[in-house]
Amino acid sequence: MRIAIIGAGALGLYYGAMLQRAGNEVQFLLRRDFEAVCSRGLTVTSPKGDFHLARVLGFRNPDEMGPADLVLVGLKTIDNERLAELVRPLMQKNTAVLTLQNGLGNEELLAEAFGPERVLGGVAFLCSNRGAPGTVHHLGEGAVRLGEFSGKFSARAEGLAATFSAAGIPCQSVPDLVKARWEKLVWNIPFNGLCALTGKTTSDLLASPAVREQALALMGEVVEAANAQGLSNPIDGNAFCARMMGLTEGMDRYRPSMMIDRQEGRPLELEAIFGTPLRRAAEKGVEMTRVRLLEALLKLGE
Amino acid sequence: MRIAIIGAGALGLYYGAMLQRAGNEVQFLLRRDFEAVCSRGLTVTSPKGDFHLARVLGFRNPDEMGPADLVLVGLKTIDNERLAELVRPLMQKNTAVLTLQNGLGNEELLAEAFGPERVLGGVAFLCSNRGAPGTVHHLGEGAVRLGEFSGKFSARAEGLAATFSAAGIPCQSVPDLVKARWEKLVWNIPFNGLCALTGKTTSDLLASPAVREQALALMGEVVEAANAQGLSNPIDGNAFCARMMGLTEGMDRYRPSMMIDRQEGRPLELEAIFGTPLRRAAEKGVEMTRVRLLEALLKLGE
Repeated sequence: MRIAIIGAGALGLYYGAMLQRAGNEVQFLLRRDFEAVCSRGLTVTSPKGDFHLARVLGFRNPDEMGPADLVLVGLKTIDNERLAELVRPLMQKNTAVLTLQNGLGNEELLAEAFGPERVLGGVAFLCSNRGAPGTVHHLGEGAVRLGEFSGKFSARAEGLAATFSAAGIPCQSVPDLVKARWEKLVWNIPFNGLCALTGKTTSDLLASPAVREQALALMGEVVEAANAQGLSNPIDGNAFCARMMGLTEGMDRYRPSMMIDRQEGRPLELEAIFGTPLRRAAEKGVEMTRVRLLEALLKLGE
Repeated sequence: MRIAIIGAGALGLYYGAMLQRAGNEVQFLLRRDFEAVCSRGLTVTSPKGDFHLARVLGFRNPDEMGPADLVLVGLKTIDNERLAELVRPLMQKNTAVLTLQNGLGNEELLAEAFGPERVLGGVAFLCSNRGAPGTVHHLGEGAVRLGEFSGKFSARAEGLAATFSAAGIPCQSVPDLVKARWEKLVWNIPFNGLCALTGKTTSDLLASPAVREQALALMGEVVEAANAQGLSNPIDGNAFCARMMGLTEGMDRYRPSMMIDRQEGRPLELEAIFGTPLRRAAEKGVEMTRVRLLEALLKLGE
């Protein structure tokens, strides 16, 4: 499969490398890593085994890329104003575009630009950080759940899930992408938010009984908002939150992406992870009280 | 009047100096400022006019102080385990003790040690910071509202209010000390809490519409908890919060005491300003949702 990676950060570099290693023809749109990757290739460190790709197709400009069967989008949502223009040169007759970006609103942007039938979305439960140029650190997890923006079953989504799985990326196609997106937010909102605000890692947060209680309460607010969105079937809040807590306990002093963005002085993905979810919750009459406070405090540092 | 100041920080030094200037005989229990005050006196800078007291009675040990008609307590509540032992040597037959400390629970401690009939409490709306040793900066405000712990009208409380007023400290005696304490918390909880957590001044907070909205929402939670305490008459939430917002707008980049404590690496007065109010709210069936989140985040930095 010919795959173009748009937004080759910690997520795009890792999944792109895994897909290339499995035999797919992968092209990467690069900024920071362009020179390192083109001259020395791409190195992945991982508890599942480090590996190095000596020859990597890196580009500075999407006009030079393609053709592609799949455009995989890992762009930071703060750059979404450039999303359509970056993806457009790659969209040929049958190209599909899969966004694994954070939060809500990304599929809608792509659907508006290219038509809803082209668009898939997914959520990645991936702990990864960028290392020095040309290196990405996979810290743990990595599963993807993807589905059609249209919400329908498709052979295309099934096929993509199979391609990912064959590349060592546990992947499921899901019938209800909206639900998958909100489930991801049940983790992202508390842990990205609290870690970015306090400068503390996931392990630091969980070591405080009071903060653990608040993380659970934030999760509960997101579940309530999610279940007001008309999901195919509701999220079982207690069980799901307990599972997310368990996953988080397994993370070793993890710094979520929003925390790293704050520490490195970059803007935060507040609109995708907080603003749009808060708006969609309010549209259904759900006020996420604690989430709103957390958002306001995060905005203050911008 | 013979007045002993226990806990001569920004509040104790300022009120003590004002009371001495007006002709009262004031003794100060000092730690950090002992040598500077004993050798060079005490300097107050203030928008109402700077002044200097050349001869100030400073002590290192409460056993050497007294006798006193009034013990005025300005001790940080984090040192409350030492409160009774510091005050005890000064408590003669008719000595009254007035605590202007932050938060809830201070009068109860004194009442347990010395009997409820000895105890008055008050709230100070004072913006002041300590300067170099021997100097205190009065930045603005300064009014005191005080009352008997017993909740009854007393000539003693009236007399104290008159003494304070005569010294240039606007002062009212109030029949409902519990209400006055909670009214103060309506300001203290949001602004001490948010400034300490974020490291931003009051002006920075108010410049953000989202944070201003949250400050108002926090105020609203405290008003609801206050009004569940069986006050003599309820706080008029909208009017009172609007007045507190107006006061805060008049503060120029003010750093509340809890923010300074955090910045200087000292423990925060979390039990008096957050813990006890949250418990008393919960006892009346009121859950202060946002306040609880703020407390948890503040605890994390301790």
